[in-house]
Amino acid sequence: MVSNRPDPREIGINLGRLSCGDYNNITDVGEVTVGHTTLIEGQKGLDPGKGPIRTGVTAIIPHQGNLFRKRLAGDVFVLNGAGALYGSVELREMGTLIGPIAITNTLNVGKVADATVEFMIRNNPDLGLEEDTFLPLVCECDDSFLNDIRGRHVKRDHVLKAFSSSSEGQIELGNVGAGTGMATFDFKGGIGSSSRISENGYTVGVLVCSNFGHRKNLTISGVPVGIELRDFCLPKERNDGSIVIVAATDAPLSNRQLRRVAKRCALGLAKTGSTSTNGSGDVILAFSTAKKIEYRPNEPVFHRRELSDYEIDSIFQATVEATEESIIRALFHAETMEGRDGNKLYALPVEKVKDIMQRYGRL
Amino acid sequence: MVSNRPDPREIGINLGRLSCGDYNNITDVGEVTVGHTTLIEGQKGLDPGKGPIRTGVTAIIPHQGNLFRKRLAGDVFVLNGAGALYGSVELREMGTLIGPIAITNTLNVGKVADATVEFMIRNNPDLGLEEDTFLPLVCECDDSFLNDIRGRHVKRDHVLKAFSSSSEGQIELGNVGAGTGMATFDFKGGIGSSSRISENGYTVGVLVCSNFGHRKNLTISGVPVGIELRDFCLPKERNDGSIVIVAATDAPLSNRQLRRVAKRCALGLAKTGSTSTNGSGDVILAFSTAKKIEYRPNEPVFHRRELSDYEIDSIFQATVEATEESIIRALFHAETMEGRDGNKLYALPVEKVKDIMQRYGRL
Amino acid sequence: MVSNRPDPREIGINLGRLSCGDYNNITDVGEVTVGHTTLIEGQKGLDPGKGPIRTGVTAIIPHQGNLFRKRLAGDVFVLNGAGALYGSVELREMGTLIGPIAITNTLNVGKVADATVEFMIRNNPDLGLEEDTFLPLVCECDDSFLNDIRGRHVKRDHVLKAFSSSSEGQIELGNVGAGTGMATFDFKGGIGSSSRISENGYTVGVLVCSNFGHRKNLTISGVPVGIELRDFCLPKERNDGSIVIVAATDAPLSNRQLRRVAKRCALGLAKTGSTSTNGSGDVILAFSTAKKIEYRPNEPVFHRRELSDYEIDSIFQATVEATEESIIRALFHAETMEGRDGNKLYALPVEKVKDIMQRYGRL
Amino acid sequence: MVSNRPDPREIGINLGRLSCGDYNNITDVGEVTVGHTTLIEGQKGLDPGKGPIRTGVTAIIPHQGNLFRKRLAGDVFVLNGAGALYGSVELREMGTLIGPIAITNTLNVGKVADATVEFMIRNNPDLGLEEDTFLPLVCECDDSFLNDIRGRHVKRDHVLKAFSSSSEGQIELGNVGAGTGMATFDFKGGIGSSSRISENGYTVGVLVCSNFGHRKNLTISGVPVGIELRDFCLPKERNDGSIVIVAATDAPLSNRQLRRVAKRCALGLAKTGSTSTNGSGDVILAFSTAKKIEYRPNEPVFHRRELSDYEIDSIFQATVEATEESIIRALFHAETMEGRDGNKLYALPVEKVKDIMQRYGRL
Repeated sequence: MVSNRPDPREIGINLGRLSCGDYNNITDVGEVTVGHTTLIEGQKGLDPGKGPIRTGVTAIIPHQGNLFRKRLAGDVFVLNGAGALYGSVELREMGTLIGPIAITNTLNVGKVADATVEFMIRNNPDLGLEEDTFLPLVCECDDSFLNDIRGRHVKRDHVLKAFSSSSEGQIELGNVGAGTGMATFDFKGGIGSSSRISENGYTVGVLVCSNFGHRKNLTISGVPVGIELRDFCLPKERNDGSIVIVAATDAPLSNRQLRRVAKRCALGLAKTGSTSTNGSGDVILAFSTAKKIEYRPNEPVFHRRELSDYEIDSIFQATVEATEESIIRALFHAETMEGRDGNKLYALPVEKVKDIMQRYGRL
Repeated sequence: MVSNRPDPREIGINLGRLSCGDYNNITDVGEVTVGHTTLIEGQKGLDPGKGPIRTGVTAIIPHQGNLFRKRLAGDVFVLNGAGALYGSVELREMGTLIGPIAITNTLNVGKVADATVEFMIRNNPDLGLEEDTFLPLVCECDDSFLNDIRGRHVKRDHVLKAFSSSSEGQIELGNVGAGTGMATFDFKGGIGSSSRISENGYTVGVLVCSNFGHRKNLTISGVPVGIELRDFCLPKERNDGSIVIVAATDAPLSNRQLRRVAKRCALGLAKTGSTSTNGSGDVILAFSTAKKIEYRPNEPVFHRRELSDYEIDSIFQATVEATEESIIRALFHAETMEGRDGNKLYALPVEKVKDIMQRYGRL
Repeated sequence: MVSNRPDPREIGINLGRLSCGDYNNITDVGEVTVGHTTLIEGQKGLDPGKGPIRTGVTAIIPHQGNLFRKRLAGDVFVLNGAGALYGSVELREMGTLIGPIAITNTLNVGKVADATVEFMIRNNPDLGLEEDTFLPLVCECDDSFLNDIRGRHVKRDHVLKAFSSSSEGQIELGNVGAGTGMATFDFKGGIGSSSRISENGYTVGVLVCSNFGHRKNLTISGVPVGIELRDFCLPKERNDGSIVIVAATDAPLSNRQLRRVAKRCALGLAKTGSTSTNGSGDVILAFSTAKKIEYRPNEPVFHRRELSDYEIDSIFQATVEATEESIIRALFHAETMEGRDGNKLYALPVEKVKDIMQRYGRL
Repeated sequence: MVSNRPDPREIGINLGRLSCGDYNNITDVGEVTVGHTTLIEGQKGLDPGKGPIRTGVTAIIPHQGNLFRKRLAGDVFVLNGAGALYGSVELREMGTLIGPIAITNTLNVGKVADATVEFMIRNNPDLGLEEDTFLPLVCECDDSFLNDIRGRHVKRDHVLKAFSSSSEGQIELGNVGAGTGMATFDFKGGIGSSSRISENGYTVGVLVCSNFGHRKNLTISGVPVGIELRDFCLPKERNDGSIVIVAATDAPLSNRQLRRVAKRCALGLAKTGSTSTNGSGDVILAFSTAKKIEYRPNEPVFHRRELSDYEIDSIFQATVEATEESIIRALFHAETMEGRDGNKLYALPVEKVKDIMQRYGRL
């Protein structure tokens, strides 16, 4: 079950014009799986290092083989770099993903990176001996409004569990994994995901950890919902958030083309009302599951299939739509949460949104 | 007069929440002026090299002093590089604009670059002798659907006239200058411009040469106008277009910050429905009029004022809004035009748009 | 004949350890050809617009088929962007070369770009009609010390002649084409070229238009020749120059890998003593002749062969060596030249260099 | 004491022509300090997780105030991204350093990042509460030839000790800190540092963690030392290494200019013989100590002093020289070391180098 709350599609909000994949999430692409470890403990006053804890880690496993030995084309676009994309330097240079993607909170990047190294070492007894070393890919958002972020509560075992429990099919959205303590347009935010089938039959899936935005900018399907709800349960002012966006596709794209795809995620983000504020780390990863590239190939020259750029527009359309819907789904599925010092983020009031959408000629 | 057609604001379309500058265009910023040379000649069948001619050149003069000796901070963001941004390499390296910005059609970039060199030589007798040389900044869109683009009809004198006739205040929009032959969302497009005053009192002005988009994606103030008008006077299929976006501000921004501003133009573009298609050269320039930087300063170290990044969010908001409105204004002000081989682009049907907006709870 | 002067190899200067291609120049790669138009007219005092003329244009034709319809993978690296790389935005986005590469003087970029458009239009009757438009690739250096650069003496016919007369095999070096008026380490510079065969059997060829450097930094095969010749016929002080570097290879490299190759050209440049001074436009292009990519391919997905990155080191070595030797060859083959206002650049004194090399244990 | 071995300058190798700072290292710049924790334990056979240990961590503290509240301009250049530059995304976006720089081995990046977070949290009780969060800057090289890298032996206390014990003045070079297990040109490598005073009176200091190169490419002051010593105690073949280069200057440079400085480090690297091989993570950071930029400044607009680009050439020269000498000093100061499984790297044989230099007309 995605969450206890209604999905945008259940109340008639169908963003874009392309159809979704089977589960309307990133696991519709290739062998991609997603795992969450969600940490919710303690109440009320902040006791630094103790809690309250409202955080977690989300893992995206790009395929189900050996990630170090079978690599996928990937690339990056940074819309606003007020955040981390640990591992991006190597990804850009080599154009390949060589491990899982982990998302967590800002101050936990070190622990999560280290646990990812451990995961890779365990699965590759020759890594760092006869074979190359490995650098983990870790992204983050700031959940300090609800979470005792200084406590760095995501530990090794939490990360390893997110990797080992990752699954395909239906995945949980909202207050789970890295999204546990996140905010979006001053509502509760978190993990969202969506997918689209392009006109030429490829699937694009997106997963976001959504933690950005000021209320009055919230736009759903073009409707200024944020202005209509500008005074609804506004939380205290706080630091800017961020958004991590991961796009996967089974289209045979090169890293050059995947960077183009990553840029289109920014266009989907814009449609929800983001202006990519100063402190928002808006980082985007894209990868293709079409071809597993051998680590140290047997032959000096290998073959790749590449989609003609003249066929890419529908992939772009799919990307924009899936990104927009991922964010809206994060908002719909996240539930009201109270965290440290009584700080509270309210869930998007779905009934009110329904009314607004109707007033604006939708649904 | 901007054009003979109504402005979006006249029918009640007020995009965003910030107020506009005096003229709601890029000349609201500092000493920026804009000049157009519009070339419309001939009818019907294409006679390559003769016509029909539906093209022109648009010049943006960043300030009214000696552009070679007094330089403005500037930078660039390329959303989709299927186009030209001649001069971008130097602009990125040095972080300063050293001449005017010229926009024309794709095959005319050489002639326009050469005329820009001539303009700069005339005004700087020591350029290339005792002093450094100069590289022009030229952007372009493809107007070949209406225009005999192979004829390269924009000549030296047309460019020099655009420079010398540039003016502040009210500027013409729609089928003028470089925008003469352009299309937007399968309607007639062209030059658009808009401005905003940020909450901290700075002005951001944007000018676009708008020549992109597929009908069904057109979105005005969040309303799916393109879907509603999906069959209205659709032109023949043709190549992708492009959009050139130029943003100016009087906020004291460094080139690093101006690149951030340029990225926000892409967010405004997204709100009109762009997915930045494969062949669309979506290039963005941003500059600040706050400080004229001396060529070969007298002192080895000079002083700059720089806006704190913590104060930049309202500049970003202004940029997103002014970009979105610039594109919508290009659509509103452009008139129906027939060009080569009877190819025809229809103006946006304003009355129909008004009806649609009302049905969607606007106006 | 390369020039009337001795080649570095004739006096025993063999840079690097890999062997050269047949002609030790860029035409050793695939079907690459090179054409020069050299303009030398007038003497003594500057009569702006008249002369003296010491300039030209150099064309690199990447292959001998239709360049618009058969494209080669290419990419760019800008070491110091105080110069032009017109066309780089599209090259980076699409990862393909779609026309010739033209090199000329700084103020001539417009005229040369326009002539390149004309060349492409002539050869492609559907370009800009049924088919896409085209943007030329033009690089430049500043030859104003010897040349009446404000006169923009490179005209359409000069450019078309450089294209049509391009040839394989032995090519002229030194004071030819775009190199006619250039300086290198305060000696006469100009066009240089060299090639290497990598250990895995691929050819890398480099061509430079060399116009940079201060005397005392000149280093030949590690020997501080510039310091030894620090007072030899030093010209008047003048503006910084630039260097354009073009690398071609028949190795099957993607644009990502070609950008890596382009970066290695900077390492070869460094070995000659360059510190890439502020005003030096140090721009680098790299392309692969291994595969002609169809414009609008018949099939939506096409196949590429790609060299494994684990096999690329010898290509890098070849690139560093060929770049270093290209620059040294430009110096060896350029002859003393006097230009405007009696400004004079002396040829590298080969006998003295020989003595120096011997003193430093070489030859 | 730098090490027990002679310095290049003691045997007459004086690279470049500018003079050094007081200590000929990076601490000659502003308030920069350097700390090392060196871990050497165990012998012989590899017992994964136990040892032998030949690794460490090196910290660069950019100034002695509160690094989170007083920030320095900084930027990055990646010559070859086969490595990590954790934190580079934020550094590039904001153009400021907000913490220390830590260098360690590849598989230790997570633990070192986490310890850096802890260091910053301790010193900033409001970080992540009332104030923004923080992302650490961590670089790495692969020391797996000598070190039990899978053991991740650099723990929290080792990192905190490197920070707290950092000092100015004479610093240890060679087999210390992150350099403990590193190789350079198939000799023992490690930490090197050097500084230069530019002609306009600014200091540039460089520190490297040097772990790259194939023997036959080693070049010292232009002399092909590597070819002369091509068979001298060659170690077993192993994976490519990397080089981390950090440049500091007291010149008032903007982040744009610091990126230019970082690129010149690559030119100094080239002069030692690097071809930046495929697997070598060659990453470069540059920062300026000239101005401490307030976190959340009191005034919305602040003042910066910026060196004119026309004055920057001597900074570039200083950067090239200091980088080259840093690498050569790493080679000179590192002592022979045996590590896991009897793998051994020999120190550069200084007496032999002296002989070679003499044969090549030096010293």
